[in-house]
Amino acid sequence: VQVPVWIRGQESLTIVSPARHEMAMLGLGRSVGTGPDGITAEVIRAESFDAFQALTDEAIRGRIVLFDAPYEGYGRTVPYRVDAASVAARRGAVAVLVRSVGLDGMRTAHTGAMRYAEDADQIPAAAISTEDANQIARMLARGDTVRAQLHMDARTLEDRTSHNVVGEIRGSTRADEVIVVGGHIDSWDVGQGAQDDGVGCLLAMEAVRLIHASDLRPARTLRVVLWTNEENGLRGGKAYALEHADDLDHFFAAMETDTGNGLISGFRFDLRAAALDDAATEAELTAARDRGLGLLESLAPLLAPLDAGSMLLSYSGADIGPLAEAGVPSIGVSHDTSEYFRIHHSDADTFDRINMADMQNNAAVLAIMLYALADMDASLRP
Amino acid sequence: VQVPVWIRGQESLTIVSPARHEMAMLGLGRSVGTGPDGITAEVIRAESFDAFQALTDEAIRGRIVLFDAPYEGYGRTVPYRVDAASVAARRGAVAVLVRSVGLDGMRTAHTGAMRYAEDADQIPAAAISTEDANQIARMLARGDTVRAQLHMDARTLEDRTSHNVVGEIRGSTRADEVIVVGGHIDSWDVGQGAQDDGVGCLLAMEAVRLIHASDLRPARTLRVVLWTNEENGLRGGKAYALEHADDLDHFFAAMETDTGNGLISGFRFDLRAAALDDAATEAELTAARDRGLGLLESLAPLLAPLDAGSMLLSYSGADIGPLAEAGVPSIGVSHDTSEYFRIHHSDADTFDRINMADMQNNAAVLAIMLYALADMDASLRP
Repeated sequence: VQVPVWIRGQESLTIVSPARHEMAMLGLGRSVGTGPDGITAEVIRAESFDAFQALTDEAIRGRIVLFDAPYEGYGRTVPYRVDAASVAARRGAVAVLVRSVGLDGMRTAHTGAMRYAEDADQIPAAAISTEDANQIARMLARGDTVRAQLHMDARTLEDRTSHNVVGEIRGSTRADEVIVVGGHIDSWDVGQGAQDDGVGCLLAMEAVRLIHASDLRPARTLRVVLWTNEENGLRGGKAYALEHADDLDHFFAAMETDTGNGLISGFRFDLRAAALDDAATEAELTAARDRGLGLLESLAPLLAPLDAGSMLLSYSGADIGPLAEAGVPSIGVSHDTSEYFRIHHSDADTFDRINMADMQNNAAVLAIMLYALADMDASLRP
Repeated sequence: VQVPVWIRGQESLTIVSPARHEMAMLGLGRSVGTGPDGITAEVIRAESFDAFQALTDEAIRGRIVLFDAPYEGYGRTVPYRVDAASVAARRGAVAVLVRSVGLDGMRTAHTGAMRYAEDADQIPAAAISTEDANQIARMLARGDTVRAQLHMDARTLEDRTSHNVVGEIRGSTRADEVIVVGGHIDSWDVGQGAQDDGVGCLLAMEAVRLIHASDLRPARTLRVVLWTNEENGLRGGKAYALEHADDLDHFFAAMETDTGNGLISGFRFDLRAAALDDAATEAELTAARDRGLGLLESLAPLLAPLDAGSMLLSYSGADIGPLAEAGVPSIGVSHDTSEYFRIHHSDADTFDRINMADMQNNAAVLAIMLYALADMDASLRP
């Protein structure tokens, strides 16, 4: 798989007035750099895209815009990280700062991928810690003019070759029917990627190892896939789906775990329109989803002793997204994420924060679920 | 006051084998730098000074030594930060790393002052986060040889002029008897120094302001002193005591708050030998301490409604140490420090972590205590 190569390089953000202050910051993935002289400009603040659009062109032009949106859950707040640079560039801003998308930490900035729209200039984009965003807000609230100097050496090089990692245990009686389970093997350059997504990779491997070590021979093939480049392009997941475009019928289900090491409460069933034929109605899709969810719910009693029997209709995951989009029944894993977003994409995502007892519990949950799916009579397809 | 000028500069610590890994590190105050080429060497680990001394010269010479002492309270563990460089240099080490002196954080390294002994070479010294110390320990435990590259631009410049900040409200009937209360106005270059010791300065000022705003006229003079350079030389506290060497008799008591914003549980009475004449016995000193403690305990009922009536014989504080050493009755403030050592001397010591309700409670406690001391009939001196 060819993957993008984005290099952070040296970077810094310094408030130069009303008082000199070094910010805790991290450039966002794919961002351009500032050039060696950096960018020094006034900082203005917007709490939301709507508040930003209400500003005058004069207020925005030549300024660094801080998008200081409160954290309202990852899915709701992450568009600021992804889209703010283009939104601000269209109106003449010279750089954007984004309040870190995550819970308050210990002055840890959270990086992550951003994206440039085709119709906007490419301006540098960085995340700052929630504490530093609050400080800028306090300065502005008391009427100070805030000026900052942003320096980022960030640059993107030629694509390089990377690899998905694949291993499987063959099924005993339905070996051509494959259940994919995995996580992503890449991580951000800061921290260690322990929860995002080292633990997801380990859980998939360990669950399948547990089945194998127990001398169980599931009917279907269990295949562990560790996808590359989830974080900054999703090239691994896309390439895997493309590579198997001609044999998608052989995929019984695709599952991934990519939200840390919190205890697993259950699973999320994700069936997309492509699973049905083109003439299918919305009602037929809903019926197919309900039927699949019902099959998962029939497995819930097996998982109830580990408090992991919650079955929902919802989003599955990023790496199996291309498979799901192509019609493969997909299953997301519901972890307790109450602490996950405090550390993910930050320096704090370290091995020390992996609780071994929780990981063993989660591997057991996955093993039970995978074995049950592998031996299930019915299909999750419509 | 002339104060030392220590500049951190750029710094980094990279594990280069068995796998490349950037460490979360902070150079220690007063440390020398590595020179532009840095230091690349094998890392060895010692859990204690005793364990270090048990190592062979061959194991130490040319190595970077990680002192990975578990945190057993600030006073017990801080000698590793202060003395490790000289201890290791005497046996041929080329640099030292110290496990951050504090609670586990979110991969935040804790800086602080170190000191070079006169009989040892000066080698660079840096703190690494507890999580990174644990990673090195894991690598070594599985038999890997760990090599690291340390780069520190740290340097010490000529002393510069700084100032203590002093303000007071004059006493009504005993104005020549002074109660000093304060904190230190300097902080480390990382973080914002919000708890160490911005909040201590604020508490002293706010307590005296509360008394003034309440139209109370205490008998004795209440003087707020914000000392400079506590962190890296104690020059402010030393200069203040020296400046008042001839009128120390006028100091009724000296008080400081320098352990964060946790709720105040009470006070610590600190009376040193110089408070008695040269011929005094240990028994007389003990009796004098007990008498002073008894006087503080007589104030405890006033503080009981705020749960701040605990009175102990113990250490008072660093900035008033020179006054205490010269015989001034000194009083430390006992804050709840259960969270303080997670953030002090680190990037995480920010204004966001100051709880306003706790601060108001603490200012009220100080105001009550100061007013009671200012109007107390008896002296705290022997």
